[in-house]
Amino acid sequence: MSTTGSTFRSVHWTGNSVQIIDQTYLPQKEVTIHLQSVGQVWDAIKKLKVRGAPAIGIAGAYGLYLGIRELPEGVFSTFYKECERVAEYLNSSRPTAVNLSWALNQILDTIYSQKDEPIATLKELALQTAIIIHKEDCRLCKAIGEYGVELIPDNARILTHCNTGSLATGQYGTAFSVILHAHKQKKVKNVWVDETRPLLQGARLTTWELQKEEIPFTLNIDSAAAFLMQQGKVDLVITGADRITKTGDTANKIGTYSLAVLAKAHNIPFYVAAPYSTIDMGLENGRDIEIELRGDDEVTHFGNKRTAPKHVQVYNPAFDITPNRLISAIITEKGVITPEYKEKFERLFG
Amino acid sequence: MSTTGSTFRSVHWTGNSVQIIDQTYLPQKEVTIHLQSVGQVWDAIKKLKVRGAPAIGIAGAYGLYLGIRELPEGVFSTFYKECERVAEYLNSSRPTAVNLSWALNQILDTIYSQKDEPIATLKELALQTAIIIHKEDCRLCKAIGEYGVELIPDNARILTHCNTGSLATGQYGTAFSVILHAHKQKKVKNVWVDETRPLLQGARLTTWELQKEEIPFTLNIDSAAAFLMQQGKVDLVITGADRITKTGDTANKIGTYSLAVLAKAHNIPFYVAAPYSTIDMGLENGRDIEIELRGDDEVTHFGNKRTAPKHVQVYNPAFDITPNRLISAIITEKGVITPEYKEKFERLFG
Repeated sequence: MSTTGSTFRSVHWTGNSVQIIDQTYLPQKEVTIHLQSVGQVWDAIKKLKVRGAPAIGIAGAYGLYLGIRELPEGVFSTFYKECERVAEYLNSSRPTAVNLSWALNQILDTIYSQKDEPIATLKELALQTAIIIHKEDCRLCKAIGEYGVELIPDNARILTHCNTGSLATGQYGTAFSVILHAHKQKKVKNVWVDETRPLLQGARLTTWELQKEEIPFTLNIDSAAAFLMQQGKVDLVITGADRITKTGDTANKIGTYSLAVLAKAHNIPFYVAAPYSTIDMGLENGRDIEIELRGDDEVTHFGNKRTAPKHVQVYNPAFDITPNRLISAIITEKGVITPEYKEKFERLFG
Repeated sequence: MSTTGSTFRSVHWTGNSVQIIDQTYLPQKEVTIHLQSVGQVWDAIKKLKVRGAPAIGIAGAYGLYLGIRELPEGVFSTFYKECERVAEYLNSSRPTAVNLSWALNQILDTIYSQKDEPIATLKELALQTAIIIHKEDCRLCKAIGEYGVELIPDNARILTHCNTGSLATGQYGTAFSVILHAHKQKKVKNVWVDETRPLLQGARLTTWELQKEEIPFTLNIDSAAAFLMQQGKVDLVITGADRITKTGDTANKIGTYSLAVLAKAHNIPFYVAAPYSTIDMGLENGRDIEIELRGDDEVTHFGNKRTAPKHVQVYNPAFDITPNRLISAIITEKGVITPEYKEKFERLFG
């Protein structure tokens, strides 16, 4: 399917460096920067120049190669110890992102498995593994879009939350990939974009991607979603996921659970799109997912401007939990999965 | 009940001008300004320097007096036509809240009813009517608090939206008056304050008033309300109202309908507190209420900083409609009204 070839890439390997779109400048300016060293990659992840769990994993994988390519080509054990040190350093940039440590471990495992090869070959192998991780993510995201598009009716008015597009992944995105594929089939009438407080990933990033793809959209504040549904202006809701338990309970950006309850109350389908690796078969219940509480400043300030009085108490969870019963289907690269999730996940994992 | 005497006043008649707290500076600075002409009052209402349906009604009433006090004291019909013109002009500042047009009509009716009096007397009568409207609002708000407090359980965790306090009314507030009276009876464990996008009246104003009254509270983004309810951290929701139809359908700040649906889904009572004048017996159905659509800039910018790309389409309704079936009770100065609203309203209006 070549119809989605227009999407840009937030992370690109130039042959010598990692080229990224610095997301901290969006939407004001599209600034491309080249990361030439592991230190620059660490900094880019830490400062959210590159964000979105899959995109961080990809950037980190290339970063590991940058960190080891100049190493002396002596004894394997010395070389490997240094590889582990570089990986640990990169992983410290955002210790909670599971994709990052997963990608770094993929490369370390590959190197270790070929330890009898010359160091030069192992370096090349590290790069090739990073490229494979990158390509694989693009493939998964494309497959999510291709499966998900079947759920989208003609003239669809789709509501989405946060940013799940090419900026957050290798390419295409997750929920965004479904929207993109539906658009290529001329099925999208309008995308309602939740601005997504507190960090405005919807207003800043999703709008920017939709403009780039020339997909019609309208920006709204998060709390207007219910009113849109009441007025019959929303045909379906689709979001990404940060973690899915084996029963289908889904952790995603704060505000997702609210949308799921509201969709149910208005008889609107609520879909989750995520690569299969997001499903954590080690967890049964959504309540067991630890929810990251973020800093007060995200709510009390805007840029450097204070918007709430001093000394206010703030509750700022980064994610919430949507129970499986509110999710109409989970769209993965292996296909569209409908309830009961647990049985079907077990079959697919088996 | 003298326990609530500490509350300040957002609107004050100095004897010559309308003194208001310019709410656009809160919470950074407490700036008091004097409105000397009807044009300044119009501008203050339009730009939300004074806001909250009852406070707008009060400011508008004084504004009408400012607009007519210099008129030539000639023929009544000419004078009255001009009074109507000034009222119409003031009323054009904000279309949804019924209080403004109600207050203006009160004054026009009073003038008309005394049309044989000298014009100078009629001007004085206009001012006296404005003062009565103001005093009456303070009395009503106090009564709302006194009735509403009966609905509040001990150790209450109350979620509220927007600003309904002294800043929005003559004094005490509406929903805020209930919280205030409950606090004086030591019933309030925590107030969850929705920040209330896009203009952050919760984060900027309600927090400021709660701090002033030393009521315990926690600020949250609007889309976290559902997650709070899911976790069992909310005992009740209480909001104000901008207009209530004779069947109980309620127009209030965007996001209110969302909370009502979520409260229902979590078996949490949802209360509306508003003076009886908010009830528009001329309207049957909430769908007939005109919803003010506000400028895109409120969503695409923060202060002067652009937070969304250029040329994005925005949907920015100022209010939404909560159907009567989602409202557990409407708290007015005449008492707590439970469904069916239509019959009870008709009895009270009879």
